[in-house]
Amino acid sequence: MAGNFRRNKKKPEAIENTGFSSLSNTEGSRLINKDGSANLRKTGMPFLDRISLFHTLIHMKWPKFLLIVFLFYTAINSVFALVYVIIGVDHLKGVSVEAESLLNGFEQAFFFSSQTLTTVGYGHITPLGLTANIAAAIESFVGILSFAMMTGLLYGRFSLPKAYIKFSENILVAPHKGYRALMIRLASYKNNHITDVEAKMTMAMHYMDNGKEVTRFYTPKLEIEKITSLALSWTLVHLIDEDSPLFEMGLEELKQADIEIMYHIKGFDDHFSNIVQQRTSYTANEIVYGAKFLPAFHRSEDGSTTVLELDKLNLHEPAKVPEPNESFINS
Amino acid sequence: MAGNFRRNKKKPEAIENTGFSSLSNTEGSRLINKDGSANLRKTGMPFLDRISLFHTLIHMKWPKFLLIVFLFYTAINSVFALVYVIIGVDHLKGVSVEAESLLNGFEQAFFFSSQTLTTVGYGHITPLGLTANIAAAIESFVGILSFAMMTGLLYGRFSLPKAYIKFSENILVAPHKGYRALMIRLASYKNNHITDVEAKMTMAMHYMDNGKEVTRFYTPKLEIEKITSLALSWTLVHLIDEDSPLFEMGLEELKQADIEIMYHIKGFDDHFSNIVQQRTSYTANEIVYGAKFLPAFHRSEDGSTTVLELDKLNLHEPAKVPEPNESFINS
Amino acid sequence: MAGNFRRNKKKPEAIENTGFSSLSNTEGSRLINKDGSANLRKTGMPFLDRISLFHTLIHMKWPKFLLIVFLFYTAINSVFALVYVIIGVDHLKGVSVEAESLLNGFEQAFFFSSQTLTTVGYGHITPLGLTANIAAAIESFVGILSFAMMTGLLYGRFSLPKAYIKFSENILVAPHKGYRALMIRLASYKNNHITDVEAKMTMAMHYMDNGKEVTRFYTPKLEIEKITSLALSWTLVHLIDEDSPLFEMGLEELKQADIEIMYHIKGFDDHFSNIVQQRTSYTANEIVYGAKFLPAFHRSEDGSTTVLELDKLNLHEPAKVPEPNESFINS
Amino acid sequence: MAGNFRRNKKKPEAIENTGFSSLSNTEGSRLINKDGSANLRKTGMPFLDRISLFHTLIHMKWPKFLLIVFLFYTAINSVFALVYVIIGVDHLKGVSVEAESLLNGFEQAFFFSSQTLTTVGYGHITPLGLTANIAAAIESFVGILSFAMMTGLLYGRFSLPKAYIKFSENILVAPHKGYRALMIRLASYKNNHITDVEAKMTMAMHYMDNGKEVTRFYTPKLEIEKITSLALSWTLVHLIDEDSPLFEMGLEELKQADIEIMYHIKGFDDHFSNIVQQRTSYTANEIVYGAKFLPAFHRSEDGSTTVLELDKLNLHEPAKVPEPNESFINS
Repeated sequence: MAGNFRRNKKKPEAIENTGFSSLSNTEGSRLINKDGSANLRKTGMPFLDRISLFHTLIHMKWPKFLLIVFLFYTAINSVFALVYVIIGVDHLKGVSVEAESLLNGFEQAFFFSSQTLTTVGYGHITPLGLTANIAAAIESFVGILSFAMMTGLLYGRFSLPKAYIKFSENILVAPHKGYRALMIRLASYKNNHITDVEAKMTMAMHYMDNGKEVTRFYTPKLEIEKITSLALSWTLVHLIDEDSPLFEMGLEELKQADIEIMYHIKGFDDHFSNIVQQRTSYTANEIVYGAKFLPAFHRSEDGSTTVLELDKLNLHEPAKVPEPNESFINS
Repeated sequence: MAGNFRRNKKKPEAIENTGFSSLSNTEGSRLINKDGSANLRKTGMPFLDRISLFHTLIHMKWPKFLLIVFLFYTAINSVFALVYVIIGVDHLKGVSVEAESLLNGFEQAFFFSSQTLTTVGYGHITPLGLTANIAAAIESFVGILSFAMMTGLLYGRFSLPKAYIKFSENILVAPHKGYRALMIRLASYKNNHITDVEAKMTMAMHYMDNGKEVTRFYTPKLEIEKITSLALSWTLVHLIDEDSPLFEMGLEELKQADIEIMYHIKGFDDHFSNIVQQRTSYTANEIVYGAKFLPAFHRSEDGSTTVLELDKLNLHEPAKVPEPNESFINS
Repeated sequence: MAGNFRRNKKKPEAIENTGFSSLSNTEGSRLINKDGSANLRKTGMPFLDRISLFHTLIHMKWPKFLLIVFLFYTAINSVFALVYVIIGVDHLKGVSVEAESLLNGFEQAFFFSSQTLTTVGYGHITPLGLTANIAAAIESFVGILSFAMMTGLLYGRFSLPKAYIKFSENILVAPHKGYRALMIRLASYKNNHITDVEAKMTMAMHYMDNGKEVTRFYTPKLEIEKITSLALSWTLVHLIDEDSPLFEMGLEELKQADIEIMYHIKGFDDHFSNIVQQRTSYTANEIVYGAKFLPAFHRSEDGSTTVLELDKLNLHEPAKVPEPNESFINS
Repeated sequence: MAGNFRRNKKKPEAIENTGFSSLSNTEGSRLINKDGSANLRKTGMPFLDRISLFHTLIHMKWPKFLLIVFLFYTAINSVFALVYVIIGVDHLKGVSVEAESLLNGFEQAFFFSSQTLTTVGYGHITPLGLTANIAAAIESFVGILSFAMMTGLLYGRFSLPKAYIKFSENILVAPHKGYRALMIRLASYKNNHITDVEAKMTMAMHYMDNGKEVTRFYTPKLEIEKITSLALSWTLVHLIDEDSPLFEMGLEELKQADIEIMYHIKGFDDHFSNIVQQRTSYTANEIVYGAKFLPAFHRSEDGSTTVLELDKLNLHEPAKVPEPNESFINS
């Protein structure tokens, strides 16, 4: 719900090129989901035009993907088995005499079909006559096309550039340089290496303007916006000083404003030799007010290497922060 | 047809680095087609040198592509079937006795050929003797090469970075800030996400210069040229103020000048983790003079998400605009 | 041969970051070959470490590539055929009785081998006993590995981003703006579209410095260095004015200095959605002194499109140019 | 061990955006390994989440990779052979009578399994009955999936953009312009061509600050940071003048400070049409104090080309250098 808080109206200017609308059409809902996708639905075009089948299959989790592939294989097999049954199983030489029952006929046709589709072609069952031969020729062609697609899909899944970045679950309001600061922490969690990493922060706040609820966007400054190499963990720090749009806001005001804080990380990954990127967002209920991160790495026991503890990425302890609109220095 | 209209000669300077010629050699014809390709034909080199077969097959529509692939499969099959017929079907062991007629021989050779090409190899028909064996060995090799190519083509089709951007069918002359403005609207229509999106606008006008028809190019300024994220729809706005080459032109003058307005969109797509781009162009008869776009998105019924209606991308209603060469403000 | 010409010593400064050496170690030989590769040999490492097999196969011309692939297929087939002969053709069930002669035995083993390698596996010949079965199991595995490699190679050949750019064979010294200018012309010759195209020019000259032959590098200015779109042909123009290192040099001096003029073109190709680049170089004997290019495109007969004539890219006619060290203006 | 040396405290400012920690947690150990990977271990997540299997297999050396692939093939074969043995080898028609012994039964099942997995399918052994047929249908499907993965892995191995850059084994402290300079030399060792090459240098030094060991990072200036083309060898030169953090340090001080000097090379490779990059690092014991590189290339005997000798990349001879904190000029 949009609040009525005192806002630092002068300095931080709202921006307009975020790609989101300033018409506040979301109530308590977020713009960016936790996994970085936009909280958005598209209509007005046929489903297949609106969806990229290839990329949907590529971004799917493995078990679901393998299940779909297996069902697809079974379905094609069954369709062709049906075709052979319609043509007549007597046109499949080698089918055993028991094939008199329809079920047994379908069963044997199904296995012949799978032998044709995968191009195993043992040859103890073979097509007989023009129609059966045409069906088999088409099926083996379909098989090869399908498995060519499979190869593409599997390679696509493996090779798609992806930022393996883990974010802290919470966003902290921590004491920093006599002020408060917004802090999150992130690390790459695979055996990859990301260089020339850039971070961008965008903030959305909802409030009432002449009785209408509107959304304003800000791009608050980060203390360090670019690092050469993301080897260890990286803490993104936005100092809430006089220039910050949050300078006069406490926890209550942040909640009232339905604040959403979005991060966009971009870098060059040497696994893929490509640019990778990841987004995430935090809403008001993910803020831990008055806390600071604890170290997430230590020296290895033999002293020869550094150990990064990914399960400690969110580890923090309480810490006293100044009141909104003031700093330790002048307090 | 190039007009003789009053032109704001001082301020907007024509540019020369568009890659197009200023020798007006097109009469009523466009430089960029609606789908973004250049309206250009190349000669003076052999067809196969001038065309990239791979990319032609990759950019082809699916039905045409699958048809070509199927015809190719049938053609290779037939060629080898012919080879076996020439060698003699008696060198294919297992061919049934009826194969005495030439047609039936070709038929059986054709199916043996398809079994060899797809490497099904049931084995009820097998090559006999040196020549038939060599032919079969070559065919299975050709088969594997062809299907390796197929894999490449299919993966190429799926993975080629492509901007799934839909443009409004019309370009509007809309009222904006007391002036007129050229506006188009665009949105990405798949389940992808494009970030760091840039738009460039180029305008071509034809007019008479000392009795010779020439083309002049302009790169008019867009109010917002870059957005962080193309989540919702984006309206590209060129304000027709005193600095615009169109300031003194009304609808008639735009038509007389055979105006062509080209847009080039470029961004980073997270589906492909690659830069994607798309071009389009509008000619004078696609201008709707005096109109403004209506919203193309709304809040979902449960309030949890935003719904983008792609079929409303071109939705507009009439709107009064100032006369050319003036603004609401000074009128 | 390095000349002793008058050189404009003050203004154009030689540069040092070309990646080439300023120790003149080439006499009459070029730095960059016509096809854009460096004229360079590497030693001191084993051949296979120095060569990228994959990329060599990918950049090879098609006939040579297909020949190598076919020879490779025949070679593997033969090796396994030999293995089966050593094991004994009597371990291949189905081999006909004539296989008593060694040659005929090898022949039949060869065809069994090819049926196994391509996984056709008709089954009229089958392995018998442990050794033959192991050999066959390994061969079919090798076969599948080889054809997986083949798929990769073919896809690599098709999808490798490549700039399809044709250059004029000659570099002209043409009259331009009252001065002389170095001009070449280029065009993309496939059905692709290159955008945001940049050109860079580097010039190498050899001359005597205290009795030692040295090479100096220059990056002369181009009138237009970047175009939005390479739709038609593009003429690269370096104006030889007072700021040019060539201002005082005529044809004889250019030849004496063993001048080499290198061009590097880079752009974003929408076929590949990737950056493509191409280099070329011109030596003194490719200069046409006193000439200008003739148009290489015209309007199509029906007036609906532009026709680019790739065979006219080098078309030029003689044209009078000013003397070195002067301009039409002050002459 | 962190030293207590005199440090030029004013000028060169330590930087904080390296992605490494300034808490000195390494004693005698390096941050970047010789091969460019970070000397870092990650914990706190399951192994499979922390590792990218695909990229591990892709970056593996060939013999190890092929061994793993072969073991994988044998393992799957064996698993299915076991399945057939459990179902009963009497459900494999064509298995010879000797199959009475369990071992021989497994052996024959194993070969049937391999014929199914690779889709050779000779057909002299065929599945009989529902269970065996289902197992065979699944196995041929698994086979095709596996070989699709294999294709992806092989293509991934071949096509992954990689900088083929060789560095000199040593880093030299050489005389240069009256000062000392840090120099390394590098060259690309394959038949590729890297353009627009950039080099970045980062230096880590450990020293005692109020009894606590800390690490400071510097990005010393390189004389030439970018070259147009990496054709020959390239010597990276950091001049140790008054602005250098090393100006007051001799060999002993460098060792005491546990200095680590890291280089990051990035360029556009025309083999891959992609950006490639490589890192390396040198520690104190790889410094050769007082030496200079000898040329690593010469003119070919016929004078037509340049020969780059990769085995001479580290070739150097002793050379007198000025004392720390002074220069030849003022000495």
